[in-house]
Amino acid sequence: MLEELKKRVYEANMLLPKYKLITFTWGNVSEIDPETGYFAIKPSGVEYDELTPDDMVIMDLEGNKIEGKYNPSSDTATHIEIYKGMPDVKGIVHTHSPWATSWAQAGRGIPCYGTTHADYMYGEIPCVRNLTKEEIEEAYEKNTGVLIVDHFKDTEYMAMPAVLCKNHGTFTWGKNAKDAVHNAVVLEEVAKMAARTEMLNPQVQPAPQELQDKHYYRKHGANAYYGQK
Amino acid sequence: MLEELKKRVYEANMLLPKYKLITFTWGNVSEIDPETGYFAIKPSGVEYDELTPDDMVIMDLEGNKIEGKYNPSSDTATHIEIYKGMPDVKGIVHTHSPWATSWAQAGRGIPCYGTTHADYMYGEIPCVRNLTKEEIEEAYEKNTGVLIVDHFKDTEYMAMPAVLCKNHGTFTWGKNAKDAVHNAVVLEEVAKMAARTEMLNPQVQPAPQELQDKHYYRKHGANAYYGQK
Amino acid sequence: MLEELKKRVYEANMLLPKYKLITFTWGNVSEIDPETGYFAIKPSGVEYDELTPDDMVIMDLEGNKIEGKYNPSSDTATHIEIYKGMPDVKGIVHTHSPWATSWAQAGRGIPCYGTTHADYMYGEIPCVRNLTKEEIEEAYEKNTGVLIVDHFKDTEYMAMPAVLCKNHGTFTWGKNAKDAVHNAVVLEEVAKMAARTEMLNPQVQPAPQELQDKHYYRKHGANAYYGQK
Amino acid sequence: MLEELKKRVYEANMLLPKYKLITFTWGNVSEIDPETGYFAIKPSGVEYDELTPDDMVIMDLEGNKIEGKYNPSSDTATHIEIYKGMPDVKGIVHTHSPWATSWAQAGRGIPCYGTTHADYMYGEIPCVRNLTKEEIEEAYEKNTGVLIVDHFKDTEYMAMPAVLCKNHGTFTWGKNAKDAVHNAVVLEEVAKMAARTEMLNPQVQPAPQELQDKHYYRKHGANAYYGQK
Repeated sequence: MLEELKKRVYEANMLLPKYKLITFTWGNVSEIDPETGYFAIKPSGVEYDELTPDDMVIMDLEGNKIEGKYNPSSDTATHIEIYKGMPDVKGIVHTHSPWATSWAQAGRGIPCYGTTHADYMYGEIPCVRNLTKEEIEEAYEKNTGVLIVDHFKDTEYMAMPAVLCKNHGTFTWGKNAKDAVHNAVVLEEVAKMAARTEMLNPQVQPAPQELQDKHYYRKHGANAYYGQK
Repeated sequence: MLEELKKRVYEANMLLPKYKLITFTWGNVSEIDPETGYFAIKPSGVEYDELTPDDMVIMDLEGNKIEGKYNPSSDTATHIEIYKGMPDVKGIVHTHSPWATSWAQAGRGIPCYGTTHADYMYGEIPCVRNLTKEEIEEAYEKNTGVLIVDHFKDTEYMAMPAVLCKNHGTFTWGKNAKDAVHNAVVLEEVAKMAARTEMLNPQVQPAPQELQDKHYYRKHGANAYYGQK
Repeated sequence: MLEELKKRVYEANMLLPKYKLITFTWGNVSEIDPETGYFAIKPSGVEYDELTPDDMVIMDLEGNKIEGKYNPSSDTATHIEIYKGMPDVKGIVHTHSPWATSWAQAGRGIPCYGTTHADYMYGEIPCVRNLTKEEIEEAYEKNTGVLIVDHFKDTEYMAMPAVLCKNHGTFTWGKNAKDAVHNAVVLEEVAKMAARTEMLNPQVQPAPQELQDKHYYRKHGANAYYGQK
Repeated sequence: MLEELKKRVYEANMLLPKYKLITFTWGNVSEIDPETGYFAIKPSGVEYDELTPDDMVIMDLEGNKIEGKYNPSSDTATHIEIYKGMPDVKGIVHTHSPWATSWAQAGRGIPCYGTTHADYMYGEIPCVRNLTKEEIEEAYEKNTGVLIVDHFKDTEYMAMPAVLCKNHGTFTWGKNAKDAVHNAVVLEEVAKMAARTEMLNPQVQPAPQELQDKHYYRKHGANAYYGQK
């Protein structure tokens, strides 16, 4: 069942090494099927050059395995919370991509220093706090998702499809798995340039708001005119 | 019509990913045909691995599409202003190449720290100011071109074939599309080395003027002696 | 003899250029056979694209060559000390991988700034001191091993499978040659991100202990639940 | 004539892009034939993917072209001075390799921070001063060579086979063209790690002299024991 979904999720997972977002198995991609409410996700700890579409695991939003010979990604509970709390999200990516993870380790959000960032993400990319000891012990992966959902509550989360988890890594999302990977690539590129920007000008300020607005709305919303309609 | 032009512009566009100057579709190249005054430019937002020479869009300098099934690059109006205001320019490149864009995001021109820079670009590579809110709202892409042309008015702009747009990215130009890409590669390499130079010596000064002159005029002008005549 | 061992050690050595951990011949991998107590190691100074499994040298723990047409790696005496002093170690890698070696040259251990590090290595990756002039003159390579063994005495050295040697390079180990290479890759990635983390936040502190614990024990020990059992 | 020499010089030139030491045509390699005193060098400004062994230019030490359809590298006069003034040198490489050139642009020699450096180069890699205006105008390329030879007068220049030219780039040498390229690769790797070392520890000191000695003499001189004899 859901062969097309598994194929798309497999292909999106294979983009992670292609875009150098991961080392070994340090990442995972999922996509949800709106009809059934099931999602497909990478199995835990299987090497990328051995993966096949058939290895993808089908889960429901209660955390039950519907189909698959492997255990799902150990971050599955985080994906579930995001799908449940942010219903426009249809694809999710987790990586430890090196520049973005360096910002996460530094405990800092990424200011919007230019149009590369503003083209895809509106405002500062947030870095959410560490979980408390209690939250970790109770349900680490689930509470990571709870924290993210809580941060984005009452916001336009499709306009900021990325978050850094302090001392950990990144989650990005999108309207499907491939779109979420696209945002993971943008995040890493933006993280790299922002770090170098600060190296070149330690007093740098974010890009003017009107420039951020122009670029974001050139590509998104009713008045977008970038691309082929 | 203009099949050779479209082929050259296609090939120059394909050099952008080859030289790692772009991610996804974040760049564009055009070249103008001196005879007709038409120019060929990459279509907006089409993925590079799907591009063909036939996808290039033919435009005139009034912004009319002469031929092509796609919308032209969203930066077309910038190209038009540069072709109109700087008539020796026959090819133009726009990128968000990461090192040069980091300087642009830092709001800084790139000092000439060495002969790699001086071999191709005479003096500091300028970073032009942000457009005002009014300029952005009136005509963002056109006014970006107006600003660039204004900056280079009454200068030897073929001796400084590159500019940084603050909080945005780069434009380079040349005597044709391929030459403009060549300058985009030089810009990125020079931007990278200049950043590291400052890291290694925060008090560094530009290279001595006589050394800059020697290298620039070794490759350019009546007394050039680099290469095969 | 030990054809399988030589093949595994050859393949592990070939992973060093694949993962860009070495330039030229600046690294070596060995693995010990628990039955015979012999180990296979790369020959000294032979170029990687000329290596074959048959070029691996078989040594015993007294430093006698058991089999092989070449001299063993000049670091063989270091491997011997580690195998003798840290008996759970079954594979060893030495590299000058650039980020980790930069920390070694800086004379600093690598603090645990995030879960990428905590997933594989428990605590700060140590940097052991320079050998004294006397230790160098007496037996440089052997004393390098003695110093490492001494540092890890009475510790859970399989939970910290990496060490930096001041002004020199890295050693990593594991349950076989491939596992030791895996740890060398982790070390280089962690070293890179830690350097950038400090660039982004010079006051940064190590990740909270409870987060380090969670990630380490999610992958190791009796309660591990990462991967496919 | 000298077909073997041209082939070796061609192959050594082709290693420059392979090891990412150059962009476009920004480098050149030569090797001298001890018998005839002629040397082969890359032609000026010819693209690497069009080069053939037959394009190499044969020159004598008076600067006369002996054979070849192209102009020799514009840096030929520098090569000549080095061959004349440092007679053990049999191969020479010039590059603008990015990390080493960043040190040159910063006007700094590269301290010996570790054994990777000490394995091949004894002591600090020097950065020679700018030429004066008069020296540039009189004979830029020749005087670059004169300056280098003057710096290394009465030194063991084969033990320090690299130099940085301030605000310019690098020259390395060796016992033949391939060996000089090998040293150019070492220089770039060492320059990269030294920059990062200072980033990680701004107060860092050079490696202890006894460690530098140990590594240099492990690979060079009468008591060397690295490699296969």
